[in-house]
Amino acid sequence: MSQPIYVGVDLGGTTIKVGLCDEQGRLIRTFEGPTEAEGGPETVLDNIERYVRQLVADASYAWEQVRGIGAGIPGFLDIANGIVVTSGNLKWTNVPVKEILERKLGKTVHINNDANVAALGEVWSGAGAGYDYVVCLTLGTGVGGGIIINGKIYEGYIGMAGELGHIQVVPDLEGVQCGCGQMGCLETVSSATGIIRMATDAVERGERTALASVEGGLTAKDVFDAAKLGDEVALRIIRRAAHYLGKAMGTIAVVLNPQRFILGGGVSRGGDLLFDGVRESFRKYTPEASSRGVDIVPALLGNDAGMVGAAGLCLKQIR
Amino acid sequence: MSQPIYVGVDLGGTTIKVGLCDEQGRLIRTFEGPTEAEGGPETVLDNIERYVRQLVADASYAWEQVRGIGAGIPGFLDIANGIVVTSGNLKWTNVPVKEILERKLGKTVHINNDANVAALGEVWSGAGAGYDYVVCLTLGTGVGGGIIINGKIYEGYIGMAGELGHIQVVPDLEGVQCGCGQMGCLETVSSATGIIRMATDAVERGERTALASVEGGLTAKDVFDAAKLGDEVALRIIRRAAHYLGKAMGTIAVVLNPQRFILGGGVSRGGDLLFDGVRESFRKYTPEASSRGVDIVPALLGNDAGMVGAAGLCLKQIR
Repeated sequence: MSQPIYVGVDLGGTTIKVGLCDEQGRLIRTFEGPTEAEGGPETVLDNIERYVRQLVADASYAWEQVRGIGAGIPGFLDIANGIVVTSGNLKWTNVPVKEILERKLGKTVHINNDANVAALGEVWSGAGAGYDYVVCLTLGTGVGGGIIINGKIYEGYIGMAGELGHIQVVPDLEGVQCGCGQMGCLETVSSATGIIRMATDAVERGERTALASVEGGLTAKDVFDAAKLGDEVALRIIRRAAHYLGKAMGTIAVVLNPQRFILGGGVSRGGDLLFDGVRESFRKYTPEASSRGVDIVPALLGNDAGMVGAAGLCLKQIR
Repeated sequence: MSQPIYVGVDLGGTTIKVGLCDEQGRLIRTFEGPTEAEGGPETVLDNIERYVRQLVADASYAWEQVRGIGAGIPGFLDIANGIVVTSGNLKWTNVPVKEILERKLGKTVHINNDANVAALGEVWSGAGAGYDYVVCLTLGTGVGGGIIINGKIYEGYIGMAGELGHIQVVPDLEGVQCGCGQMGCLETVSSATGIIRMATDAVERGERTALASVEGGLTAKDVFDAAKLGDEVALRIIRRAAHYLGKAMGTIAVVLNPQRFILGGGVSRGGDLLFDGVRESFRKYTPEASSRGVDIVPALLGNDAGMVGAAGLCLKQIR
């Protein structure tokens, strides 16, 4: 039996997840181990090698069946050359990941940033399967974006395309500063961090809200839970996050005319409360011709999207 | 001699321009005649046939040398099927232009919207030659957009990509309504129409400006001329047009990461006064990683871009 398999690595700051996929992008088996980022690139890349080889062996595949290996990595990458230019999560600068992993594993390795890879995963075997023009937004600590055109990641001139969290959507005088240095980026209001910031501000201002009695640090889930129980302050915060997300998606629609938007990441688990607000704002702020036939759906693969998409990086085109 | 030639038609509301191009996208010869839009689609398409055949004959080419024919048309098109769905300028609805012209001319005919075609022309033999990721903005009556990726027009899901004039960039409470129904679109401030509107408003409010003494209807050129002489009101208007244009380009850069922006159309002839303001605003509102290596240049082909790009539509890829 020589069924080809594809290996995807989702490299996070604390955990490395490795998955084996079949030719349809279905996960066959996964493994999760510590990143040990404090050990530096050498330790981390050693770990990746070890986890990958062990997973393939445990699944009783021959090494020859591995047709492609890919890794999704947070940070700013030189994709063409396979170099991690900077990664805040990993505290890396100029690490030639592709070259090192290829030496260790004896196979071609592709890398790409985590948001692009998650988008590719959803288009391969998740919520975007069968769609040609897809935009994914991952609403987590930040807001990541991935653009898939005809089954391929659209990277742009130097790989910086799809930085959708940095669309400036909050009016100048109402925005706060984003990590990128700009004011009013989408990420400042529609990420988990943004929601927590707005909630913390409200509590510190002394607004009457159930959020004031949450013990320990507030989470985005606390805000969604309170909003579902009718807490007006929590509702206002979620509406604001949804409003600006829908408005930014209107801008994306005017530029790219995608057929489908996929929302993933922790905040997307807010369900109807989030999606209803996003859809309403999107319809309101998008010219009819650009919103015609466009839908907005939740991601299907959850935390597996990164592994699946990374496994698919070696394919020139998904499907 | 059987050098292949390419025919491009630039169909406007009052004039039809036809150009012959060589394989490098250089214009060999052109012809211009009245559209006679009042005669309806039949008259207009008859005129196109006549002008095209006459131009090829006058230039002493054999009909067999015509390798491709394309037309750039203002309006909302079903590009894949070659149908003009609606065109305000021409007052057409559901006209199967491709089918009719192919019957008349006995050759395959491609159509696309005027802004996309102008962008393709600039990439073929104008300011975008040699660039893979180009965004063109045509600043005329409206603001048209064209996105060229790897030498091809990027059309999106139903051909509505690149509607860059409808990026909503003016804050809600300061915007005016756009023809598309939305508030605060780029087109409402950075088109000739937008500049004239702001100038007329200022004059009607009784602001002290040399524009008040312009006889007949104000033009965008009047506003630029006054601004160049230091008229504060005219300067404010041009700065506002440039400010929002640069800011909208920042959003485009974050989404698409192009290498080069090309500004064409009448307003782009405003020169340094416009370009300095646009570049300043673009740098200010774009994260460094997304603006790195990106330049902003004037179009080179002027009014010929439409003919050149239309002539290139038959090529799967320019260069």
